[in-house]
Amino acid sequence: MLTFRTIKSLTQCLLGYRTSSLRVGFVPTMGFLHDGHRALIAESVERCDITVVSIFVNPTQFGPNEDLERYPRALEADHELCRKAGVSMIFLPDASEIYPPGFQTTIEPGPVAEPLCGAVRPGHFRGVATVVAKLFNIVQPDVAFFGHKDFQQCAVIRQLVRDLNLPVEIVTVPTVREADGLALSSRNSYLGPTDRQRALCLSRGLLAAQAAYGAGERDSQRLIAIARSQITEVDQLQYLELRNANTLEAIQGLVDQPAALCVAATIGPTRLIDNVILDLSSARPEENRSSLTKTSAAASDHLSTGVA
Amino acid sequence: MLTFRTIKSLTQCLLGYRTSSLRVGFVPTMGFLHDGHRALIAESVERCDITVVSIFVNPTQFGPNEDLERYPRALEADHELCRKAGVSMIFLPDASEIYPPGFQTTIEPGPVAEPLCGAVRPGHFRGVATVVAKLFNIVQPDVAFFGHKDFQQCAVIRQLVRDLNLPVEIVTVPTVREADGLALSSRNSYLGPTDRQRALCLSRGLLAAQAAYGAGERDSQRLIAIARSQITEVDQLQYLELRNANTLEAIQGLVDQPAALCVAATIGPTRLIDNVILDLSSARPEENRSSLTKTSAAASDHLSTGVA
Repeated sequence: MLTFRTIKSLTQCLLGYRTSSLRVGFVPTMGFLHDGHRALIAESVERCDITVVSIFVNPTQFGPNEDLERYPRALEADHELCRKAGVSMIFLPDASEIYPPGFQTTIEPGPVAEPLCGAVRPGHFRGVATVVAKLFNIVQPDVAFFGHKDFQQCAVIRQLVRDLNLPVEIVTVPTVREADGLALSSRNSYLGPTDRQRALCLSRGLLAAQAAYGAGERDSQRLIAIARSQITEVDQLQYLELRNANTLEAIQGLVDQPAALCVAATIGPTRLIDNVILDLSSARPEENRSSLTKTSAAASDHLSTGVA
Repeated sequence: MLTFRTIKSLTQCLLGYRTSSLRVGFVPTMGFLHDGHRALIAESVERCDITVVSIFVNPTQFGPNEDLERYPRALEADHELCRKAGVSMIFLPDASEIYPPGFQTTIEPGPVAEPLCGAVRPGHFRGVATVVAKLFNIVQPDVAFFGHKDFQQCAVIRQLVRDLNLPVEIVTVPTVREADGLALSSRNSYLGPTDRQRALCLSRGLLAAQAAYGAGERDSQRLIAIARSQITEVDQLQYLELRNANTLEAIQGLVDQPAALCVAATIGPTRLIDNVILDLSSARPEENRSSLTKTSAAASDHLSTGVA
């Protein structure tokens, strides 16, 4: 496994592989890797000849009062996880490598970035879209892998790829959960034991709504109410919304199209997000007993694959 | 010479060429091709194995009161010019091919797009940057060629390529002028005989300032005054400014760095732009007697080549 800190060294190395027509898979991350990242890497290793993982805590997607400074880092453990998972190359740039002096061009993602996290975190998806486009242009992968847990991010990136004709295939990989339902996130490391216990109400609420949907409930307000009735232990519920799973448009009345039930909430100083897909192919209730269950796999596979 | 109207057909054809490692040159145009475009194509044909020309009057770079509807078109003549010039492929998409329903992502170019044409034409360079990035991603050229006449556009695109790590080399080709100094432009076709005569004052003013610079004048205000004293026959002088030739920052006081003297003016219903470079390697006065003189070649070659 090779590690690169500069764009030039990475692209020079990749150039050799590209001329030999090997398939390049790319997993962009912010590091502090967990089993959710491991699932992305596994998917890439299975589908591609070369897997590139970037580890870059992108400052432009953090707001001024967010957790950029304290975002968890564990470079040695990340290396170890990548090595064991079969990663070919790690790209580990400094911020000045990605944003050199004079940098000034940004990508504005449009309406798909406006609701949900886009409303709570102004400019967040501008930062995401810009850095992802940059990383795509640097790595020039054939396929890139994103976790379904960041549902709106996946939608923003699919739209970015479509709108800017980026020559990359986007694959979304199902959310990985702990045995008790908690969606894996690097930010879970912020949670003390009590907060971690409280955080379980998020997945409990979403999975209850998904179960009701599976049992035939189609009224969007009742589905939201079912989830809401479980989500009682958060400090601030930022949103709990049903959105079209592809366009992210709001759903009112009956759920007659693939939908995502999305939640964001703070628990103590920690902000968490989660989502489940409601559609016919994921209509059976989640099995959330086994460790590290992949949730709503069928639905997200169905929804996730966009080709440039 | 092949003509493609869809992204899919073009990219499928180019894919075959790319795997054989041929060098692809790209000349994006809005059609109504003239000897300025011919110079771009000639440069590409000389440097590359395959030359792709796009002809697309991009609606998003026109303001609501601008000349999108009446922008001149001459598709048959364009084909003939391309064929004779050695073009391999023409890409001729409809607007709906470039901006399908649901399109929503844009690229914001930053401060380089703010002065000059950016101030007079709000949103113009957002449209330019977005469509050029899209075309780059579709064609995936090794090199792309732009005319120095659109000086700020060249600067915006160099910045775009640098900031988004687009894997393309940008080459700027010197402005081509008529024997009497008029910079070639598709919009010259709007000019009746009287307006065309009046339009000559633009290049006369710029070239007078360049001559004064060549003779040792370094005071920015006096250089501008020299140009201004010739530019007497326009209806509205939109700007006449000295800018750093690389960053486009305003120059005050002495001209001690490569500079661009840029003008935009309306003559009747026609808006024209022009510029000359002031730096030591272009310090001798322009020879503007011969037909289709390439102006400030040394300077623009020096300034123009940015590599991703």
